[in-house]
Amino acid sequence: MLTNKIQYPYIVADIGGTNARFAIIAGKNAVDGQFILKHQKTYPSIEFDDIESVTRFYMNSFKNITFSGACLAVAGPVISKNIQLTNLNWHFNIDEVARSLKCKNLKVLNDFAASAIATSHVAQSHLFSLNDGQGVTSAPIAVVGPGTGFGVAALAPQNGYYNILPTEGGHMTIAANNQLQTSILQRLSKQYDHISIEKVLSGPGLSNLYHCLAEVEGIPAESLSTAEITQQALSELDGLSYRTLMLFTSWLGSVTGDLALSLGARGGVFLAGGILPRIKQFLQKSQFMQHFVEKGPMTSYLSQIPVKLVTEGNSALLGAASWYENKE
Amino acid sequence: MLTNKIQYPYIVADIGGTNARFAIIAGKNAVDGQFILKHQKTYPSIEFDDIESVTRFYMNSFKNITFSGACLAVAGPVISKNIQLTNLNWHFNIDEVARSLKCKNLKVLNDFAASAIATSHVAQSHLFSLNDGQGVTSAPIAVVGPGTGFGVAALAPQNGYYNILPTEGGHMTIAANNQLQTSILQRLSKQYDHISIEKVLSGPGLSNLYHCLAEVEGIPAESLSTAEITQQALSELDGLSYRTLMLFTSWLGSVTGDLALSLGARGGVFLAGGILPRIKQFLQKSQFMQHFVEKGPMTSYLSQIPVKLVTEGNSALLGAASWYENKE
Repeated sequence: MLTNKIQYPYIVADIGGTNARFAIIAGKNAVDGQFILKHQKTYPSIEFDDIESVTRFYMNSFKNITFSGACLAVAGPVISKNIQLTNLNWHFNIDEVARSLKCKNLKVLNDFAASAIATSHVAQSHLFSLNDGQGVTSAPIAVVGPGTGFGVAALAPQNGYYNILPTEGGHMTIAANNQLQTSILQRLSKQYDHISIEKVLSGPGLSNLYHCLAEVEGIPAESLSTAEITQQALSELDGLSYRTLMLFTSWLGSVTGDLALSLGARGGVFLAGGILPRIKQFLQKSQFMQHFVEKGPMTSYLSQIPVKLVTEGNSALLGAASWYENKE
Repeated sequence: MLTNKIQYPYIVADIGGTNARFAIIAGKNAVDGQFILKHQKTYPSIEFDDIESVTRFYMNSFKNITFSGACLAVAGPVISKNIQLTNLNWHFNIDEVARSLKCKNLKVLNDFAASAIATSHVAQSHLFSLNDGQGVTSAPIAVVGPGTGFGVAALAPQNGYYNILPTEGGHMTIAANNQLQTSILQRLSKQYDHISIEKVLSGPGLSNLYHCLAEVEGIPAESLSTAEITQQALSELDGLSYRTLMLFTSWLGSVTGDLALSLGARGGVFLAGGILPRIKQFLQKSQFMQHFVEKGPMTSYLSQIPVKLVTEGNSALLGAASWYENKE
């Protein structure tokens, strides 16, 4: 409706604790209406001092292009114009950054809110079904997923479109579902005052799980990165890495089920974030769905919820673009 | 806007696992716009076979009155016309009950959705502040509370009014925050396959807590009802009942904080349900708020959320009335 007002190109970004990803939206494909992403770049967030530096660094690659504005999806609550990124020591004021970057039209939204918006733009070929279910179109949709942290957002339907609810569900206290999980949490409690979902179900969380599981089993842990644990788990059956990833996916199932209950997400659950697309087959064979539905009298309620893995890596960028254009 | 179409009187009800409460809405007060509730009656749900019988029993008291319809707030998910009450063996089809009762206009909604709607109708004098905070008007409001079960609903603001999201958050797996809570859950796991929030934070949950705490402390438990435990806790300092209620209120604080995070409820949290108004002063002196905010990096986010106890006992009835009139 308002798209005729949109001036291309503009910048979109997905800025998390690990990576700052940028692209230019050059327009929309005339045939399928999909956004045209160009000049995608990914920088390690830690190599920059703040959001202004990394955004300026990207913009400076395009001296001769005039952008109509930018939309940044950031890993942190967006409540006021003063924003603090949760897993980075970056805080900024939207107006000050806009002035300093000479960006006429700077918009900022929560990264999981962007992923949530994107679920309506992601092609079916980029959705991998873990549970077909029967989505209730009048009910909310949840978008959850492990990455550097653990993101949660909901889309609440309202008069034919969606109201976005960014949440901080990844910071809830994580619940144990059995003796093994209780033992893991007892070990983590020596390290953290508060054990949230993201202390277990994220990249750093996977590493926490690996070391705690080794302790519980009384076997030595290797010094492995999160990527190496995942890689080992996918290649060698029955090793510590494999058992770690099994525990990770089971626990993720239970936590995702809890979030679906707390959001009343009968419209569907989308799994996003950087980790899961890489372990797609493992996830499907794991006990994820079994633990998702195992909630006493709510088992039938949960069994009916469609659960889809978003394998489109650009979902936060697409969501940022959609947000930018609808807020124009 | 549509109120000129409303025909009075009509029936409202709040039907939970313990009580079925009914009233007639006779109109609205011309001065303050508040609903006029008449002929309130409460029946023990267990004495009736189904929702039709209890509703008919109430209607039969008014042989000479013609009702324009009825709005029933029920403790269970309202997804389709076939409804199952969560803590009662009652299931029914809305159209069949309407036909059988000769009720032209029968509406049904979730009881916590009704309580959520009512928060905008409850007078300030019926709100007891546990945390003043600074509510964000564009953010969701959460309504949570222990009763026979543990209800959760959210109100998501949308273009100046609220979109109601009934949830099943009370069936999430409950998280332990310390060694005592872990010990309690280990004992409960002998009794239940799945330990949800409502297994701990409800009337029956309070009784579970009392017996488990006695076991953990190695002291004998008396054979007390939930009401007797509460009564003892309020009168005798340092007894087992007192420690049980302290544990209950602390744990409730932590769980309410988790739900505020998962719903992004920066608009405010309302505590409803049948138990809390009776322990208002105890709740205020307890560690409820301390545990509500103790969520690592989210402590500041949570400290800003207004937390209010709804002491209006008719909130679900008022919410049902509001829903009935807006859906007319």
